[in-house]
Amino acid sequence: MKNSKNDINANLNPLLDQLKEIAHLNGIQSLLHWDQETKMPKKAIGSRTEQLGAIASIIHRLHSGNDFKNGLKQCVDLKTGECIIKNATDLDKRLLKEVHRDWVKSVCLPETFVREYQETISISQNVWADARIKNDFKLFLPYLEKVVNLSTQKIDFYQNSSTYDYQKELNTHPYNFLLDEYEPNMTVDELDPLFNKLEGSLKGLLQKIQAKSESPKKSGIESLHKTKPFFEEKGQWNFGIQVLKDMGYDFDKGYQEKSSHPFTINFHPSDVRITTRFKTNDLFEGLSGSIHEGGHALYEQGLLEEWFGTPFCESTSLGIHESQSRFWENIVGKSESFWSVYYPILKDIFPSQLKNTDCESFYHDINSVNPGEIRVEADEVTYNFHILIRYNIEKKLIEKSLAPKDLPDYWNSAYSELLGVSPSSDANGVLQDVHWSSGGIGYFPTYTLGNIYASQFYEAMSTELNVEECIRRKQLGKIKNWLNQNIHQYGRRYSAKELVSKITNSSISIDPLIRYLDKKYSG
Amino acid sequence: MKNSKNDINANLNPLLDQLKEIAHLNGIQSLLHWDQETKMPKKAIGSRTEQLGAIASIIHRLHSGNDFKNGLKQCVDLKTGECIIKNATDLDKRLLKEVHRDWVKSVCLPETFVREYQETISISQNVWADARIKNDFKLFLPYLEKVVNLSTQKIDFYQNSSTYDYQKELNTHPYNFLLDEYEPNMTVDELDPLFNKLEGSLKGLLQKIQAKSESPKKSGIESLHKTKPFFEEKGQWNFGIQVLKDMGYDFDKGYQEKSSHPFTINFHPSDVRITTRFKTNDLFEGLSGSIHEGGHALYEQGLLEEWFGTPFCESTSLGIHESQSRFWENIVGKSESFWSVYYPILKDIFPSQLKNTDCESFYHDINSVNPGEIRVEADEVTYNFHILIRYNIEKKLIEKSLAPKDLPDYWNSAYSELLGVSPSSDANGVLQDVHWSSGGIGYFPTYTLGNIYASQFYEAMSTELNVEECIRRKQLGKIKNWLNQNIHQYGRRYSAKELVSKITNSSISIDPLIRYLDKKYSG
Repeated sequence: MKNSKNDINANLNPLLDQLKEIAHLNGIQSLLHWDQETKMPKKAIGSRTEQLGAIASIIHRLHSGNDFKNGLKQCVDLKTGECIIKNATDLDKRLLKEVHRDWVKSVCLPETFVREYQETISISQNVWADARIKNDFKLFLPYLEKVVNLSTQKIDFYQNSSTYDYQKELNTHPYNFLLDEYEPNMTVDELDPLFNKLEGSLKGLLQKIQAKSESPKKSGIESLHKTKPFFEEKGQWNFGIQVLKDMGYDFDKGYQEKSSHPFTINFHPSDVRITTRFKTNDLFEGLSGSIHEGGHALYEQGLLEEWFGTPFCESTSLGIHESQSRFWENIVGKSESFWSVYYPILKDIFPSQLKNTDCESFYHDINSVNPGEIRVEADEVTYNFHILIRYNIEKKLIEKSLAPKDLPDYWNSAYSELLGVSPSSDANGVLQDVHWSSGGIGYFPTYTLGNIYASQFYEAMSTELNVEECIRRKQLGKIKNWLNQNIHQYGRRYSAKELVSKITNSSISIDPLIRYLDKKYSG
Repeated sequence: MKNSKNDINANLNPLLDQLKEIAHLNGIQSLLHWDQETKMPKKAIGSRTEQLGAIASIIHRLHSGNDFKNGLKQCVDLKTGECIIKNATDLDKRLLKEVHRDWVKSVCLPETFVREYQETISISQNVWADARIKNDFKLFLPYLEKVVNLSTQKIDFYQNSSTYDYQKELNTHPYNFLLDEYEPNMTVDELDPLFNKLEGSLKGLLQKIQAKSESPKKSGIESLHKTKPFFEEKGQWNFGIQVLKDMGYDFDKGYQEKSSHPFTINFHPSDVRITTRFKTNDLFEGLSGSIHEGGHALYEQGLLEEWFGTPFCESTSLGIHESQSRFWENIVGKSESFWSVYYPILKDIFPSQLKNTDCESFYHDINSVNPGEIRVEADEVTYNFHILIRYNIEKKLIEKSLAPKDLPDYWNSAYSELLGVSPSSDANGVLQDVHWSSGGIGYFPTYTLGNIYASQFYEAMSTELNVEECIRRKQLGKIKNWLNQNIHQYGRRYSAKELVSKITNSSISIDPLIRYLDKKYSG
């Protein structure tokens, strides 16, 4: 199967030109968000919200308007999405299937709704940031209620649309429509048993680890750096930049900035930006931000520019996206091989701070398994429990069996039950993540899917590449190339499931993740 | 005459809503430029250019499309611009006159042209920056030719349009149509005698200054800091920020960044950003950038938000804009009063560097009159010669009596003749300014107009306010308030000429500028 835009039937070109224009406007919309999160002066929030509303309206108008519809009608049966172009290849058909899918979702939503949604999440994110600083859930509550309400409205639009009814499988649970925004075609019916099985296995693994009589050797830095901040930001920044360069992140096509919550954003494969944040008493906050977001960024930089504007230049699912970030953050960035190379470099940057520790104890330190309250600081074993809690909450919010106002209590109980910890505050509890404030209900499950996919890809990669050897020799580029070749270049040409199947000859499975964790922690 | 949006006839509201949407899209377009000049990764230039083309097309389509035309038709006679609303007030009529004027200019230009223009200047600016670094005029030449060519095409569109023919006075010279983009209704017929008179007066003044037997006391820093860079950027940065705060620049509605050429950009009165640049061997490069752009920014922050989207929330002309920046940069920032307050602060920041100098010699140093090659480093007397050269070149380029390829030779001759200096390179000669690369033919005259207006406003201000006393007491806010009240708040409600007349009871005159310079330099 070919993979060049020149192979596409020329009849599709007018449609692809329209899509490219829309994609550039989407890039512009993302720049507005980037600016808002990194640099925007605080009193500009009102005008920024209106700008976001204006551009969202325009994008929606172009995508759901008659010009686009007429172009699409030349290529597919609008009702079924079936290709009607003569001599269409599989590549043409695949492309049109995805284009049609996007259009169907677009026309379900009225422009007024799209605008209101965009404007609401712009303000809501601001209020959330403030509420988190002030540890004041009540401040955020009205906006959370709005986001939940708008999400429910969105589901109603999808469910009641005559164009969307070809996706009948989503109708088994309203939450499926939100999940579908991030992990296309994934459903609660599929996710529930997968996550239940994972929960059981991880609980077993956690017991096994905790039961080990010997606790791992401690480096001593942890206790030290909890008492006194002392890792200067500049040193941390430089170290992160060096790792990003080694990973192959192209600084001519992106750069790193600071923000209150790390994220990756892309306007085009030639402009993919990342953020991180630092704590002077914690070396890993900043570094894991850089590596995690760097993993996302390699995916976006690895999409093929020639397909820009089409689904083939878009990530295929958030789960696959998270598989890239989690792969780099954990499988690479928390490995013994990685630190055998990078620990000496880190020690050169912070000689006095690290003088009483060695690589081995450092490695054990950063991989110690300790259930805690903060998701982004969690170890690889307990991380998924954080996601399972959020996944259950999201379903309940959408089913309306849990009201936003009752969230803090529910959250705290869930943390006690599953992780055995009581969040010290709402700021470190229910307010810790940005996602809900920005409308991202349905996003969280993709983190755990990402962990699952990452381990599956890791096993497949290991049959072709000695991954540990590559890391020890600082040849991270070989790993990047494998990911470019097997995942990034395809964009949405293969769905997440197809990609997993193509790469691993298997369906989605938690076994590689459990094998990986078991090996790491029983070693 | 009232000045609140509530006083506007309600029949105008639908039109004003459309304008607000367009204004937000213009703000978004400006954000793309801002990002390009400050942060964009270099390989993103291609996608950025396409983004700018896309948004320019959209803006133009909305402004010149049928929806807007139909809305406008309810309010004015499209041909003459005359108000047809019953019971319209003077405020309504004035607003509609400006709205109609903008619309007329918009419909003259085809969308394809607008897009090509926007895309060309995006690349052209990048090429110019590169050519300047490499001191390679030939690299920039093809783009300069494109910009001149597009400017000529633009004039043709205006001249041949049936909608634009009510502005017959512009037809006396093709350059008028470009001038009109920056200084509405200003013409070569008016500017030539004004500038000729100024040239004569300034030559006389320069001779007088140069003839003075005694050369001013020298501080000694100049010779020192030419040999060795030693004013750390951080200290300069902090000093500039302090001055900006004292001026009343609102950092909650903007912030300062670095760029290769200082500029101000605004997306809304609540988001007005400035840039500067630094030399470690020159204290004034960075500071004058901050004060100059700060002056522009106060104008934009001083526009009334309630009018956003209408001409009343836009600066009335670039000349008036430059009057604000030049007022702060020169009349305030290069005054004895200013340095009597700020020199001690500067000395605290750079104690060792300034230990052998005092305020008086420092003041003389920064005000010494020396014809040189660089416009932005010029003293207040010779500055205008730089503008006169550019103004003449621009007219010749548009008249086609000078070809872009012959520009370096022409430039160097003109500098020899008028300033008595031979530019040391094209980088420090014809390539020194960004304006032509970004399409700004017609912009330069507004700097000298700004100097003229600034002195006129200064004389008027001085009848109400002891300006020097305000500066010496560090009450810069009083000056800002006067400018807010007399200039900023009105936007385009008064044209430049009307504003000058309203404030000074006089027409445009070079006399206050000559009086100001004469007093300063004969003192």
